[in-house]
Amino acid sequence: MEIKFAKDKNSNEMYFNKVEVLLESLPYIKEYFNSIVVIKIGGSMMENNKILKKVLDDLVLMKYVGIKVVLVHGGGKQISKIMDERKIKPKFVDGLRVTDEKVIDIAKMVLIGQVNTKIVNFLNKHGKIAIGVSGNDASFISCSKKEYKKDGKNIDLGYVGDIEEINSSFLINILDDGYMPVIATLGVDKKGYIYNINADTCASEIAISLKSEKLISLTDVDGILKDSKLISSISIKSCYDMIESGEIDKGMIPKVEACINALENGVKRTHILNGTKKHSILAEIFTDKGIGTMIVKED
Amino acid sequence: MEIKFAKDKNSNEMYFNKVEVLLESLPYIKEYFNSIVVIKIGGSMMENNKILKKVLDDLVLMKYVGIKVVLVHGGGKQISKIMDERKIKPKFVDGLRVTDEKVIDIAKMVLIGQVNTKIVNFLNKHGKIAIGVSGNDASFISCSKKEYKKDGKNIDLGYVGDIEEINSSFLINILDDGYMPVIATLGVDKKGYIYNINADTCASEIAISLKSEKLISLTDVDGILKDSKLISSISIKSCYDMIESGEIDKGMIPKVEACINALENGVKRTHILNGTKKHSILAEIFTDKGIGTMIVKED
Amino acid sequence: MEIKFAKDKNSNEMYFNKVEVLLESLPYIKEYFNSIVVIKIGGSMMENNKILKKVLDDLVLMKYVGIKVVLVHGGGKQISKIMDERKIKPKFVDGLRVTDEKVIDIAKMVLIGQVNTKIVNFLNKHGKIAIGVSGNDASFISCSKKEYKKDGKNIDLGYVGDIEEINSSFLINILDDGYMPVIATLGVDKKGYIYNINADTCASEIAISLKSEKLISLTDVDGILKDSKLISSISIKSCYDMIESGEIDKGMIPKVEACINALENGVKRTHILNGTKKHSILAEIFTDKGIGTMIVKED
Amino acid sequence: MEIKFAKDKNSNEMYFNKVEVLLESLPYIKEYFNSIVVIKIGGSMMENNKILKKVLDDLVLMKYVGIKVVLVHGGGKQISKIMDERKIKPKFVDGLRVTDEKVIDIAKMVLIGQVNTKIVNFLNKHGKIAIGVSGNDASFISCSKKEYKKDGKNIDLGYVGDIEEINSSFLINILDDGYMPVIATLGVDKKGYIYNINADTCASEIAISLKSEKLISLTDVDGILKDSKLISSISIKSCYDMIESGEIDKGMIPKVEACINALENGVKRTHILNGTKKHSILAEIFTDKGIGTMIVKED
Amino acid sequence: MEIKFAKDKNSNEMYFNKVEVLLESLPYIKEYFNSIVVIKIGGSMMENNKILKKVLDDLVLMKYVGIKVVLVHGGGKQISKIMDERKIKPKFVDGLRVTDEKVIDIAKMVLIGQVNTKIVNFLNKHGKIAIGVSGNDASFISCSKKEYKKDGKNIDLGYVGDIEEINSSFLINILDDGYMPVIATLGVDKKGYIYNINADTCASEIAISLKSEKLISLTDVDGILKDSKLISSISIKSCYDMIESGEIDKGMIPKVEACINALENGVKRTHILNGTKKHSILAEIFTDKGIGTMIVKED
Amino acid sequence: MEIKFAKDKNSNEMYFNKVEVLLESLPYIKEYFNSIVVIKIGGSMMENNKILKKVLDDLVLMKYVGIKVVLVHGGGKQISKIMDERKIKPKFVDGLRVTDEKVIDIAKMVLIGQVNTKIVNFLNKHGKIAIGVSGNDASFISCSKKEYKKDGKNIDLGYVGDIEEINSSFLINILDDGYMPVIATLGVDKKGYIYNINADTCASEIAISLKSEKLISLTDVDGILKDSKLISSISIKSCYDMIESGEIDKGMIPKVEACINALENGVKRTHILNGTKKHSILAEIFTDKGIGTMIVKED
Repeated sequence: MEIKFAKDKNSNEMYFNKVEVLLESLPYIKEYFNSIVVIKIGGSMMENNKILKKVLDDLVLMKYVGIKVVLVHGGGKQISKIMDERKIKPKFVDGLRVTDEKVIDIAKMVLIGQVNTKIVNFLNKHGKIAIGVSGNDASFISCSKKEYKKDGKNIDLGYVGDIEEINSSFLINILDDGYMPVIATLGVDKKGYIYNINADTCASEIAISLKSEKLISLTDVDGILKDSKLISSISIKSCYDMIESGEIDKGMIPKVEACINALENGVKRTHILNGTKKHSILAEIFTDKGIGTMIVKED
Repeated sequence: MEIKFAKDKNSNEMYFNKVEVLLESLPYIKEYFNSIVVIKIGGSMMENNKILKKVLDDLVLMKYVGIKVVLVHGGGKQISKIMDERKIKPKFVDGLRVTDEKVIDIAKMVLIGQVNTKIVNFLNKHGKIAIGVSGNDASFISCSKKEYKKDGKNIDLGYVGDIEEINSSFLINILDDGYMPVIATLGVDKKGYIYNINADTCASEIAISLKSEKLISLTDVDGILKDSKLISSISIKSCYDMIESGEIDKGMIPKVEACINALENGVKRTHILNGTKKHSILAEIFTDKGIGTMIVKED
Repeated sequence: MEIKFAKDKNSNEMYFNKVEVLLESLPYIKEYFNSIVVIKIGGSMMENNKILKKVLDDLVLMKYVGIKVVLVHGGGKQISKIMDERKIKPKFVDGLRVTDEKVIDIAKMVLIGQVNTKIVNFLNKHGKIAIGVSGNDASFISCSKKEYKKDGKNIDLGYVGDIEEINSSFLINILDDGYMPVIATLGVDKKGYIYNINADTCASEIAISLKSEKLISLTDVDGILKDSKLISSISIKSCYDMIESGEIDKGMIPKVEACINALENGVKRTHILNGTKKHSILAEIFTDKGIGTMIVKED
Repeated sequence: MEIKFAKDKNSNEMYFNKVEVLLESLPYIKEYFNSIVVIKIGGSMMENNKILKKVLDDLVLMKYVGIKVVLVHGGGKQISKIMDERKIKPKFVDGLRVTDEKVIDIAKMVLIGQVNTKIVNFLNKHGKIAIGVSGNDASFISCSKKEYKKDGKNIDLGYVGDIEEINSSFLINILDDGYMPVIATLGVDKKGYIYNINADTCASEIAISLKSEKLISLTDVDGILKDSKLISSISIKSCYDMIESGEIDKGMIPKVEACINALENGVKRTHILNGTKKHSILAEIFTDKGIGTMIVKED
Repeated sequence: MEIKFAKDKNSNEMYFNKVEVLLESLPYIKEYFNSIVVIKIGGSMMENNKILKKVLDDLVLMKYVGIKVVLVHGGGKQISKIMDERKIKPKFVDGLRVTDEKVIDIAKMVLIGQVNTKIVNFLNKHGKIAIGVSGNDASFISCSKKEYKKDGKNIDLGYVGDIEEINSSFLINILDDGYMPVIATLGVDKKGYIYNINADTCASEIAISLKSEKLISLTDVDGILKDSKLISSISIKSCYDMIESGEIDKGMIPKVEACINALENGVKRTHILNGTKKHSILAEIFTDKGIGTMIVKED
Repeated sequence: MEIKFAKDKNSNEMYFNKVEVLLESLPYIKEYFNSIVVIKIGGSMMENNKILKKVLDDLVLMKYVGIKVVLVHGGGKQISKIMDERKIKPKFVDGLRVTDEKVIDIAKMVLIGQVNTKIVNFLNKHGKIAIGVSGNDASFISCSKKEYKKDGKNIDLGYVGDIEEINSSFLINILDDGYMPVIATLGVDKKGYIYNINADTCASEIAISLKSEKLISLTDVDGILKDSKLISSISIKSCYDMIESGEIDKGMIPKVEACINALENGVKRTHILNGTKKHSILAEIFTDKGIGTMIVKED
């Protein structure tokens, strides 16, 4: 048949509502056009494929509307799971995983071969857009063995590293070729040994080295709470107060410190969001709704 | 105050609905990412600033989500208005405006100085994104005087031109620099005389020279009608039939012919839409709602 | 016929004289090779097409021997003419045209659609060498509303702008692509309103932003006169003295001030020439004949 | 001390002998300068770190004297080892590993996270020269599920893929940036599922897509033997004869077929070498000693 | 003194005449803008520094007005002079210099070290515009030993070469960097031996490889004469007739043959001019005066 | 025959020894990869073609393993030889050749036409790798006439120049195009006169302008001797002492001074080697054997 007629006139209303919403997002799209945004997703986000896919869909949208997304991931829970399978007991000192040779071997396998590969694979279902890398590739993350003291004594944490330098041009090349880099947080020392690096710290240093607009930490809590109420914005100084008073504690401390480090070295804004809540990152970026907690430099 | 608390938990629902809509548009955004789309807007669209602004806002959104928009405009009504002011009587032969020296002078002033300038100005309120050009710039549209016969006799239409060649690399440079070219449809002949060129034809030839994905003609009717019913898709052959039968007539003929010309020379899809209806172009591009009439090559 | 013999041996003399002249210009061609020269032509130059064509022919030659010519034009007289037609009375405050909405609409139409289009068209008869732009294109001239006081009171001059910034890379792109930019002196403020900008000031600011070698103001008088005698060169300080003494007055003042502004901000040489005299600009550039008045920084 | 005297005059002889050897390699260095050489190393090579390091040192030398080395690796033995640990029984059909979901998950972890990471890490001890990738990155290796019949019945091999397309420009970018790509042979189908791909076939297809000079298969036998004697060169036709007669069998068949495929699609020379013998690849490239078996197109 | 007055009003006439001449050359400048013109100057032109300088000044002008000039020179007379000094007797076979080892050594010294160096040096007095090269540089002119038979016997002409290939991109790089290549006509064979190459042939082959607009042969006679009358234009066919009839003879034959070869392989126009006459080349290029003899393809 | 068998198993040992040597050179190859090394070869090296070829072979190897070699040569002995032939008596003042017009003419012919041409020719037997230039090409070495005083009186040395400026980007272009520049040490003054420049000084200034890693002076003695013993390394200060004491004298002085000049202006290491000894330069670069004398900045 060579002619088809239009049918359901009544449905128009629905479509026009939809495009109205698209247009409402235009000011936000313009604001972030060509900006670099570094996003860190925690291991908790990766246990549930449904949640992970939702989050990655959000990042794909961000990429297609012109944001240069850099994705940094950890994978502590995934490492623990394999260790458990192999009946290796995890050891922690002050929350830092002691990483001997067996553990770093598992970390490499899990972070690069399992977690990173899965994230890249999910993203590429939307087009050939993502490339997985670790600091081992072109040795682009240089680190040194972490020195750690407890009660005046040196503690050997094994293959746990402190970042010495990020080769930012390695990442910029990937971004300029139109790809989203997905980064497993391993680093390499001068002798070529591979170390595990804290993902929050790594995201922070990458955001600094790329002079990024935003650092967003996606976790499984809503943000920083005070008396069970969600703080929407907080100054660096108040963060320090709350850490001292114990109101910010445990796993939240490295996230907050990573944000502060970023802010003090040129990153414009930092956020801690609940990535398990649907589209929290899109709501944060593309609406005037402040989701989670924003940590800011000026009070 | 250094800490602000989050307030209205209840509003979250609204924001999440909004971003859901954004995500629904992702497949469409991906489909048109980096594609060239040539859009022709008629003079009728430019009489009402509110309507014009709405349409241009839509184009800005298209640009920011990665579509290479090329905007072609006419301005017949605006020319007539000034002629009226100056008490010059318009002469038409078969719907073609006879364009003597006085008229072409007005055409240049109106098309370039008034209509094009206004469109560029409206677009640039969204950022430094648009550049106005006419075929006179770098003589990028070469034309020759239109030869026209009626009843076997040559009719002198004055400065009415037929396109000889489009210097597409001139436009591609503008697109590659990240700008949207806004084109007033004047051409230049070998001796350097400026001619008025039918905007529908010009848009069609530009779409061909740029190997564009789509040619969209925005007008003030809903599309091609048959027995008062809107046709949503139609083949080239059926178009010819309806022109012969008189079902397609008057101002719709050049629009349909421009679409056919484009289709027969490599443009993939062509549409005739009612630009005065809110966001018709966005609904066409970013939803699965077929708005207006699509003319296709294959039946 | 397969062989033709040479005829007029006697004519050789003439040809050799011609090429001798070409060679005499070589040192000047070398001096300006790849230099940027900003030329401002006044409205008086554009009333007579013969004079205008002569001047533009000169600029074409300059372009072909390697000078990067940037052409800035006003069009006050042409604006007045159309206002006259439309029976709008011009209002001036201290020589500044009060520019209400009606007037700025005419200014856009005339400067861009008529004057700029004509100049570009004439230049392109020598090849595809010129592109017409105004500050509205890519909003490359940013301005703000001119604040003007008289007798302690604010005077509203309407859409008369002061330049805030020139996006010089916009012009450099055009030059590097091998084109001559022809600039209508309109600017855009932060809200997107279009303003008329004094062409002398605009040429001066463009020359500064392009770090140009020369700023040449083509007008219809021979230069600065003192006691009816043409001054061939004059220092900035003496200019100020002559302005104070009233020896420099009226329309000459903004031209002289534009030259001084350029000199004080890095432009090497500035000239005021009589463009209505045949080839004055070529004589200035390509011979050791100092035409008109040169204003210099050092005394 | 500000002056040191030269000592051991007698040692000079030794040094001059060394540089003589360097010079002898010059013709070979010149021959391969800027050529692309694809090298496939088998899993057997990766069980012994000493042997692996020796081979990789050889590749580093090749890179530094101007050869564009592309390294392709399998890892079947490493996969089997982990499966063994996890008590998953390997299933094979005609030597092809049946790869269900559990197995492909292990394959990803082992090939990318263990084997590829180790190789890249060893190479980077010589400078920041290697980048690890798999076909999952930017989905640069497109594949489809392998269809396999046995006795007329379809056998489901699970996630075993046949290459559809190699995005060679992805690899060329890496080479042009000065890096050596190290490739884990996984591919992605249209729906985004990851498949294991035979490393010999993959190396062959990559060599073809890169129009490489040479394809070298490093294994743990000396080459093709006939009556226990090493064949130094053999034609495609003779290979087919020996496969038919059973003289070439088992694991050697896919290696030989990969070479033949490469030769028939534009690769100039193919070799099967014993990588466990010290420096066999350097001897092959940089001396006139033909090591292993060369398969050639013409007889 | 801060003010200088203009003096000699009467001299204006002279200056305006001069610029009129400049403008008359504009159409010719436009015609050759960005064209490649290969010019061969004979050894006779190089004996008199005054004449040589005049000619080179002409070429400098051509370069500055946008022509891409490639200069090819011989130097037979200069070679003979040194041979004379060293008391080596020149041997010629049919006008071809027998070039043994002693002679080729002198040729290298004279062509590269004396003639080429002098030309480059003279040109660079006008700016850093010329680079001297011979076919020995990057071996960009490949040749083979000329095989020559006389009366059925092979004659050994020694180091006299026939061009096998011109590496045109070597020359295009030099032109694109803004320099004029000055070429001494030596070539290199496969073994690396240097040969003398006839400069007319070499210029012809270079013009072909560069797809040049014009080949101009500057010599010390006015062109081709017939019955003592200068031919201004002649067809290829008529050239062959005149060679057969002996009307074209001796040194003119290789020049005419070089022109014919160029014409038959894509060069648009070829000229033989008297370079010792003042500015003959400029008169040819920049006026409508046909100087010398033009050989054309079509009759 | 379609199958060939491997023969001489016993020869393998030899080949493996060879590649072991290649691998031993890898650390050195890595160290100098992409470094610029300026090498000066003296006239003494050019009298014996066998020695010259050996040295140039060494440089070719250096080039192919990634070193950016810049070769600077003198040719005093070759100039003297031709002067002798022509019976021109050389005049020297304090070891500086008085260079009148006749002598500079011979210098140009010999340095450019004979010595430079021969070196380029020898190098290009290994591929199209070398380009010969002198400071006359693009006038890339600017100089002024050397002012020289003896006993308080000015001595006219004729065309002997002091370097004013090296246009290093001229050389960098050649290196980036993949060629080795071979430089005859002539310079050009402001008026365009050509001067002879001391090759040691010239090499030193070129090394400085290119920020080169090493300057190596190849001569016909083993290095700096003290009490007939070869010094392997020496500080700048000790050099000055030995010059004062007369232990360093004659031709060694300018070599040592050139090294010191280079060291004091950013060149990292300088060496004086005996180029007539086989492969001394390769032994220096690619082994840990310190050949000749190294002059270093720090004591």
